[in-house]
Amino acid sequence: MIYFNCDYNEGAHQNVLDAISDTNMVQSAGYGHDEYCEKARRLICDLCKNQELYVQFLVGGTQTNLTLIASALRPHQGVLCAESGHINVHETGAIEGCGHKVLTLPSADGKITSRQVEKAYQLHVECDTPEHTVQPKMVYISNPTEVGTIYSKKELEDLASVCKKYGLYLYMDGARLGYGLMAKGNDLDLESIASLCDAFYIGGTKIGALFGEAIVISNPALKEDFRYIIKQKGGLLAKGRLLGIQFYELLKDGLYFQISEHADVMAEKIKDALQTMDYSFLVDSPTNQLFVVMPDEKIAELSHTYFFSYDHRVDEKNSCIRICTSWATKEENVERLIQDICKE
Amino acid sequence: MIYFNCDYNEGAHQNVLDAISDTNMVQSAGYGHDEYCEKARRLICDLCKNQELYVQFLVGGTQTNLTLIASALRPHQGVLCAESGHINVHETGAIEGCGHKVLTLPSADGKITSRQVEKAYQLHVECDTPEHTVQPKMVYISNPTEVGTIYSKKELEDLASVCKKYGLYLYMDGARLGYGLMAKGNDLDLESIASLCDAFYIGGTKIGALFGEAIVISNPALKEDFRYIIKQKGGLLAKGRLLGIQFYELLKDGLYFQISEHADVMAEKIKDALQTMDYSFLVDSPTNQLFVVMPDEKIAELSHTYFFSYDHRVDEKNSCIRICTSWATKEENVERLIQDICKE
Amino acid sequence: MIYFNCDYNEGAHQNVLDAISDTNMVQSAGYGHDEYCEKARRLICDLCKNQELYVQFLVGGTQTNLTLIASALRPHQGVLCAESGHINVHETGAIEGCGHKVLTLPSADGKITSRQVEKAYQLHVECDTPEHTVQPKMVYISNPTEVGTIYSKKELEDLASVCKKYGLYLYMDGARLGYGLMAKGNDLDLESIASLCDAFYIGGTKIGALFGEAIVISNPALKEDFRYIIKQKGGLLAKGRLLGIQFYELLKDGLYFQISEHADVMAEKIKDALQTMDYSFLVDSPTNQLFVVMPDEKIAELSHTYFFSYDHRVDEKNSCIRICTSWATKEENVERLIQDICKE
Amino acid sequence: MIYFNCDYNEGAHQNVLDAISDTNMVQSAGYGHDEYCEKARRLICDLCKNQELYVQFLVGGTQTNLTLIASALRPHQGVLCAESGHINVHETGAIEGCGHKVLTLPSADGKITSRQVEKAYQLHVECDTPEHTVQPKMVYISNPTEVGTIYSKKELEDLASVCKKYGLYLYMDGARLGYGLMAKGNDLDLESIASLCDAFYIGGTKIGALFGEAIVISNPALKEDFRYIIKQKGGLLAKGRLLGIQFYELLKDGLYFQISEHADVMAEKIKDALQTMDYSFLVDSPTNQLFVVMPDEKIAELSHTYFFSYDHRVDEKNSCIRICTSWATKEENVERLIQDICKE
Repeated sequence: MIYFNCDYNEGAHQNVLDAISDTNMVQSAGYGHDEYCEKARRLICDLCKNQELYVQFLVGGTQTNLTLIASALRPHQGVLCAESGHINVHETGAIEGCGHKVLTLPSADGKITSRQVEKAYQLHVECDTPEHTVQPKMVYISNPTEVGTIYSKKELEDLASVCKKYGLYLYMDGARLGYGLMAKGNDLDLESIASLCDAFYIGGTKIGALFGEAIVISNPALKEDFRYIIKQKGGLLAKGRLLGIQFYELLKDGLYFQISEHADVMAEKIKDALQTMDYSFLVDSPTNQLFVVMPDEKIAELSHTYFFSYDHRVDEKNSCIRICTSWATKEENVERLIQDICKE
Repeated sequence: MIYFNCDYNEGAHQNVLDAISDTNMVQSAGYGHDEYCEKARRLICDLCKNQELYVQFLVGGTQTNLTLIASALRPHQGVLCAESGHINVHETGAIEGCGHKVLTLPSADGKITSRQVEKAYQLHVECDTPEHTVQPKMVYISNPTEVGTIYSKKELEDLASVCKKYGLYLYMDGARLGYGLMAKGNDLDLESIASLCDAFYIGGTKIGALFGEAIVISNPALKEDFRYIIKQKGGLLAKGRLLGIQFYELLKDGLYFQISEHADVMAEKIKDALQTMDYSFLVDSPTNQLFVVMPDEKIAELSHTYFFSYDHRVDEKNSCIRICTSWATKEENVERLIQDICKE
Repeated sequence: MIYFNCDYNEGAHQNVLDAISDTNMVQSAGYGHDEYCEKARRLICDLCKNQELYVQFLVGGTQTNLTLIASALRPHQGVLCAESGHINVHETGAIEGCGHKVLTLPSADGKITSRQVEKAYQLHVECDTPEHTVQPKMVYISNPTEVGTIYSKKELEDLASVCKKYGLYLYMDGARLGYGLMAKGNDLDLESIASLCDAFYIGGTKIGALFGEAIVISNPALKEDFRYIIKQKGGLLAKGRLLGIQFYELLKDGLYFQISEHADVMAEKIKDALQTMDYSFLVDSPTNQLFVVMPDEKIAELSHTYFFSYDHRVDEKNSCIRICTSWATKEENVERLIQDICKE
Repeated sequence: MIYFNCDYNEGAHQNVLDAISDTNMVQSAGYGHDEYCEKARRLICDLCKNQELYVQFLVGGTQTNLTLIASALRPHQGVLCAESGHINVHETGAIEGCGHKVLTLPSADGKITSRQVEKAYQLHVECDTPEHTVQPKMVYISNPTEVGTIYSKKELEDLASVCKKYGLYLYMDGARLGYGLMAKGNDLDLESIASLCDAFYIGGTKIGALFGEAIVISNPALKEDFRYIIKQKGGLLAKGRLLGIQFYELLKDGLYFQISEHADVMAEKIKDALQTMDYSFLVDSPTNQLFVVMPDEKIAELSHTYFFSYDHRVDEKNSCIRICTSWATKEENVERLIQDICKE
């Protein structure tokens, strides 16, 4: 079987693994108080062109989201996000588990707009009894979104502007950030993201690391005592250096971006083939995830050789599946898939 | 000003107040371990025709909802309810504050159907990774609903049946239960509710008591250690007898139902007048809350004399307001309102 | 049976009940947005000689404690208190239920010292890995304490000074505050407490009200959005005016202090009798609670007529019981008890 | 510098690292649904001689403890443990963060006794108002304890017996389980632990793995929906196979036990040297952690070459430090340390 179901089917990029091996028997301090994490932190500040950023490394995405949100919000505050947002649908209520309501906004393409945020905020403060409803205090977006779409710089600026106006935190889940930043048409970069968001994370698990997410905090209010919260929520890795080593390796010479681009290019090839066959898409995704509508028969045929994620039933005869490439996707497998897609 | 904005503008029915006065200097045990609570418990069991029911008294509705739900659910479990459900929109995230997601279902009339519940449950268990999403474990309904509509016996039986099939708890918020049970067209009673729901509460705050809700639990799994949870969540009233005294007084001779009926009749009079004037309603409510669409001009005119709840803007010139009667509504005020409504 | 087991065996002082009756059918806004609450708030500010105080009314003590603490602390922060503190032993883990550790300090007399607080704080910040331990952020005291002792002005000033030095909040649980303020030897008053504590509450449940606690917040950081937290935790009383009416009645002419003094005087009479009989006390309490060590035989004999709280076994033949007077204690019952105590 | 401060200063045992490398580009299912985890699970069942055990793999110890405890307890229930227990002092209130009180028992040697547990339980149920206090429902022990001591089979049997009697769960934190099982005088093994405890974990982070803890659940009540809780608490590793690969490698040929024994032997050598020099110990530890009291001068001298953990000040001139060996400790470093200890 060939896996196109997600972007975490393999281990790590060989360079990352080598870096872990090379340092294996070095003795170092625990919990991220080591030189590798320190180097990786400085490198991320350099890439974001802001030496005041506060950087911590965590193991996984749900952990990162819940830790940041639990750290930022008071009990009566909630987080606005798209209905399809990862924190709303794929984290088993991790945010509610920390006591906070996820306040959903409808979205056809996985994105939310500054206008939606403004309206939600105003609806809250203008109602007769605001204290009877959850106070919106944070905006959560993911880039790319759950369905592979990306925010433009203008869209992010508008969100940041509304958030600033109403005292909301803007937080970007970057589980697949590399795939977004290397996508065709993208005009965001680490620097602009770091300056527009109060916090965001650079995803490693899905882009070349064994595991790991680098959370980057620019808002001073969100830095205070953040490591206490990491520890309390179970996210402080004893051998924290494993995270520093991986991020340093991924980011020091642009490896992170090269392998991200590879995944996007592989996805584009598949997308072209699907378009040739006149299949339609849930949304137009420029990143490594394609949500395509196909006849069940065709899906069944392809499933003899390939693993996909089943997304949802469209009608009696058609379903939407997710085809996902990654840093590790082999071109030969993509070509084989394309042949099988185009086979009548 | 005359208040038609809600059903808790006055204190208590005089009989209730007299009962509190008459027993004022009697010494009794605290926390509900007194003879008044005991009598009220037995009376409720009698009215529900089930001596195995477990009855506790709490002070308010949000407190009752959060206590019952926190007691019943494990951390990964959520509660299904209508988007307009009180726990979803008017309790400042009290349920999420206890760690549980509120899983919303769309509803035009404030009610949810057994089919919706079944579909939501199946969607959960049939998805690829159920453990990544919140597990539905309880169904929350209110009767009457937030918009004044009521469940029929058949609808409740269907809900109970689906809940039983899938191991879900069925819980009814009865903040205005009396108004529902005395509504035209209602075919439910305490006995049928107690036998169909795993738990429900008989609302006192909005129907003649100074404060107080009587929670009635039939499912043995929900009885265990329930008072520990009441205490932990801050709901165990030191002078618990105040709750027992009030519920005994309200229920011993049917006062609760008489005053509920009064409110429904008053609302119906107003409804008839509104219909005469061709105003339209959000839904067709047979209980003490009317959600009526009126020109802003007319609302402004009436607002010189009456308080209503503003619900939402309908279009440029019209808004929906809530007109609410109660056990304490004076007929003369209703007649005056009707005159003013009908005044051209 | 005559009850000396606690100070909430009866209803309310007659004046309080009358005030509730007199206003019963007045229509007013809900949730504390009424004129009675407003008057009571202004009166409390006057009594504390500080017009900037923020005052809210809640129903019970556990509710008040958990709401204030949940509102004030971030997830990794804990509250220092005496091992015997109410929040540590008598609230079913209400504080932990809101996510916060209670950090206990040993105490023989129910009080904690500024030196203990300082040491606990320093131990935290000076340890190798502070982020692995709970951060002390609040000091909880009760006055009178659980065993009836009271803080001197000097002791409270010292606590306040250490708290200020280290950025800790100082919070006083005043469930029995009146009994403390009227005790022999007391040199605190509402003004000094309001100026030294970041927050405290004036207990009504145990001193003449049907129920109710008035929380008084002086630290601006603790005022923000406090009502949201009250609502979320289930403590926002629909007919909030009941609380305002009661506190206004209790405080407008000093009734609160007169009836508190009565309880202290009654307790002192009993204490004198017990001393005459050479019984020993757990601590020397000047307030309405006496913890006295008695032979089990004598306890059994008295228990035919009187209810006490059993506190703990002292040795094979002796136990410590709590004898509690209140605003409602009748002098004739005290005299009868004294006779029976002194009977050989 | 040579590190004797803890047992997680290096990466992983070479075999473990090789196993990760060898499988790096294999594609597999995520979240522990892979063949490596499956093999490791079966192996653990074999080693425990019980095919009904439920095994899951998590990344770290605090995460494991909080996940198991949050999954097992209802809101009003707490966990009994030694005052020095890891969950009480070194997890930033992770358990309280999940809503549960840690109920501490005094302990001089890090262990608690069945008699202490029984007494604590009885104190709870026999008090006048059990529902006002936290209900003990679980007993948490660590083996070895925080100070390196171990439980005998008899002691564990007694604890299990009391837990069974009162319906308490018995849970063993095995962060350093290997070091305990290979200690001189130990008479426990995986089989007996699995049969006596409701749940325990086999620690990997501190014994040869890059990271990872294998939680083993025997009580069916604790198995249900456990993976939902892992996910909600942020502990479900996307590339879960990394955990399965490591545990399989460590356990398949006894490597885990060999390297554990090495650490114990190294510690014993140091202990012998310390005893020769007449230094005293906090407790008599047969495992890889030694808590030794030394003159500050001597500590300062050794600290030029070695890192230790400073534990606490003993008196003006002496302190207690922790010397810790591990699976990775080099014998030459131990010998050098011994020479320096014995140097006058």
